[in-house]
Amino acid sequence: MLEELKEKVLKANLDLVKNGLVILTWGNVSAIDREKGLVVIKPSGVSYASMKAEDMVVVDMEGNVVEGALRPSSDMPTHLVLYKRFPQIGGVVHTHSTYATAWAQACLPIPNIGTTHADTFHQAIPCTDEIPAEKLENSYEAYTGEKIADAFSNMNPLHTPAALACHHGPFTWGKTADEAVYNAVVLEEVAKMAYISKMLNPKLEMNPDLIEKHYNRKHGANAYYGQIKK
Amino acid sequence: MLEELKEKVLKANLDLVKNGLVILTWGNVSAIDREKGLVVIKPSGVSYASMKAEDMVVVDMEGNVVEGALRPSSDMPTHLVLYKRFPQIGGVVHTHSTYATAWAQACLPIPNIGTTHADTFHQAIPCTDEIPAEKLENSYEAYTGEKIADAFSNMNPLHTPAALACHHGPFTWGKTADEAVYNAVVLEEVAKMAYISKMLNPKLEMNPDLIEKHYNRKHGANAYYGQIKK
Amino acid sequence: MLEELKEKVLKANLDLVKNGLVILTWGNVSAIDREKGLVVIKPSGVSYASMKAEDMVVVDMEGNVVEGALRPSSDMPTHLVLYKRFPQIGGVVHTHSTYATAWAQACLPIPNIGTTHADTFHQAIPCTDEIPAEKLENSYEAYTGEKIADAFSNMNPLHTPAALACHHGPFTWGKTADEAVYNAVVLEEVAKMAYISKMLNPKLEMNPDLIEKHYNRKHGANAYYGQIKK
Amino acid sequence: MLEELKEKVLKANLDLVKNGLVILTWGNVSAIDREKGLVVIKPSGVSYASMKAEDMVVVDMEGNVVEGALRPSSDMPTHLVLYKRFPQIGGVVHTHSTYATAWAQACLPIPNIGTTHADTFHQAIPCTDEIPAEKLENSYEAYTGEKIADAFSNMNPLHTPAALACHHGPFTWGKTADEAVYNAVVLEEVAKMAYISKMLNPKLEMNPDLIEKHYNRKHGANAYYGQIKK
Repeated sequence: MLEELKEKVLKANLDLVKNGLVILTWGNVSAIDREKGLVVIKPSGVSYASMKAEDMVVVDMEGNVVEGALRPSSDMPTHLVLYKRFPQIGGVVHTHSTYATAWAQACLPIPNIGTTHADTFHQAIPCTDEIPAEKLENSYEAYTGEKIADAFSNMNPLHTPAALACHHGPFTWGKTADEAVYNAVVLEEVAKMAYISKMLNPKLEMNPDLIEKHYNRKHGANAYYGQIKK
Repeated sequence: MLEELKEKVLKANLDLVKNGLVILTWGNVSAIDREKGLVVIKPSGVSYASMKAEDMVVVDMEGNVVEGALRPSSDMPTHLVLYKRFPQIGGVVHTHSTYATAWAQACLPIPNIGTTHADTFHQAIPCTDEIPAEKLENSYEAYTGEKIADAFSNMNPLHTPAALACHHGPFTWGKTADEAVYNAVVLEEVAKMAYISKMLNPKLEMNPDLIEKHYNRKHGANAYYGQIKK
Repeated sequence: MLEELKEKVLKANLDLVKNGLVILTWGNVSAIDREKGLVVIKPSGVSYASMKAEDMVVVDMEGNVVEGALRPSSDMPTHLVLYKRFPQIGGVVHTHSTYATAWAQACLPIPNIGTTHADTFHQAIPCTDEIPAEKLENSYEAYTGEKIADAFSNMNPLHTPAALACHHGPFTWGKTADEAVYNAVVLEEVAKMAYISKMLNPKLEMNPDLIEKHYNRKHGANAYYGQIKK
Repeated sequence: MLEELKEKVLKANLDLVKNGLVILTWGNVSAIDREKGLVVIKPSGVSYASMKAEDMVVVDMEGNVVEGALRPSSDMPTHLVLYKRFPQIGGVVHTHSTYATAWAQACLPIPNIGTTHADTFHQAIPCTDEIPAEKLENSYEAYTGEKIADAFSNMNPLHTPAALACHHGPFTWGKTADEAVYNAVVLEEVAKMAYISKMLNPKLEMNPDLIEKHYNRKHGANAYYGQIKK
């Protein structure tokens, strides 16, 4: 069942390790089959070194395991909410990558102060508010997803495909699992650069027109970065 | 004598190097055989590259060498005190890993400000007070162990399996030597993240309920992180 | 056409990756054939892993593609302006290397506070002003080149072969593409060192005579660093 | 001539690269044959990748090349002064390692605030004053050596085998070239730790008795760290 998607999700999970975004078992990637309404996700707490495609867990949109011998990632309900609230996305990534997590721990959005950021993320990376105590008991992971999605009420989630969960860490997404991993790689690098920049000059801001320019030269109607897609 | 435990202690010591926690000869792992009342520990100042299982030193609970041609780690008395004061532990690790040691040098506890921390450590990582001059002469290493253990008078050492010795560096422990190494890896990463977060936002704190939530989803009675232990 | 120069430009681009200055597709190197008035440059947004010498794009000094199936780097107009304004240079590099980019994002020049800097860069690395909104529409990349070149009205671009584009990142150059890559490696290292030094001591400055001494022992008429060029 | 010492000096230079203390051609190691009054030193500005033992340069105590086709390191006069002023040393290392150089650029001594430091360096790593302009012209490198040696008028150079040249970088030494390299490795690590500690807690100091304790458990008359030397 969904063998091809399982292979893609496995590869995407291993790419997190290759790119230095994940140590131990910290991190998970999922992908959705929109037609079937099923999500393939990494199992919880399993070593990357021994993980196989058949270990990937298939869940339905209510989080019931449809196939797989292992428990799904404990962050699975966050992934599901993001798929429900962002119908245009096909893959979700969660990591504890060092600098992005440090911004999340500081409960601060990552400001858009450079073209490295603006090339991939149209706006600042939003950070959710602290989750109130009464929401922690039964629906914590789903609530995290809701608060992330709420932060995009006036933003296009594919134009700024990342968010920070306060005191927790980063989530990224994309049209595919691979794109979500790419965005996680960029997020960690811009989180590091923004940290250093903020230490050098705490009063940073960037001309909004330059943000538009860079975002659009890569993603706009007249984009001229990269090769023409055939 | 204790050949299997020696192999485990050797492997655990080498894992410190693999995980980038140790350079030169800085770091040591031990494990205890509770039935026999014997501890196996790395020899002092020996190169990791050439170390063999048979080089591991066996000491009794008073620190007498029972087997082994080499001197035990000079931090051995600290290990012994931790085994005496924490009867539930089976392995102890000491490193000079960069960020954890930097917090120790600053004589500051590592605050619990993120779920990465709370997933493994229930509370802030305590830091001992400075050791008074009169304690340095004859029983310095044992006294370090006592001060660490004293910091846990109201804490469960297996729920927060790490401490900083002021101006010295981190100690971690666990039910086995492998667990103690795992905790040392997590400690260094949370020490780095907490440093960056504190630079970004010096007034950090985290909702205690979120700490409970994350610690318990991994370690509580109804834990749902990871796979069901068989 | 220009096969030898294409090989050199390919190698120089791959050297950026080897030296850790570039992740993903971020960075580009070009070289000029002054006699023919043609520039060889990396294609835009192509993976380094699969890039071949024949993928390099040949453009004329107005930016028209003379040979090559792929689009040139979107930063190509900046390269062309630098070649026009600095007739003594033969290669140009642009990267998003972490620390140099962080200084650019902070819109601050990198001060010359150490001999590591002064050995390669005679003066502080200048940072351009923010680009006004009206210049962003049609000639942004060329304007970036003009602003960089303007910063050298009283400086020799071969004595300080680097500049930062505010909110964007570093450009370096040299007599050849290889020299430009060398200067990019040095720039990233001095950017990191200057960051740490500034955190330790915000009021830094260096005796101008020591700057002269170090720059000249390597590059002056009586240079005695390195071997005598035959 | 001095073939064995040349092999040792070559190996020590390559060890700087292996330990990540040196990029490009930045760094040099020398060793002295006290009986013959000759020093073997790395040639200036030569690539580490292609360097051979026979490329090492032999100079006398006045800096005259006695053997070798290449120019000696431009820092050679600093090495010679250190050998003259510190008769007990046998090897000298100079690097531009990142954190030690950053402290030197900030013109600040590296404070002794941890046992990692005290295990190898008895006191704070001193930093020279700025070199006055009139000394830069003709005897700059020798003067650097004199100022370093002056900083040890009340200190034992083998107990604190390192110093920073203000705005320049670190020098370390030892009874052999290998020991000097070891000390350079430790210096870079304690420079990094001290930087992080100082950012966390700018008002750092360490109990002098703890410094004595750690230094002496490794180097004192009753040292018990490491194995008994046979």
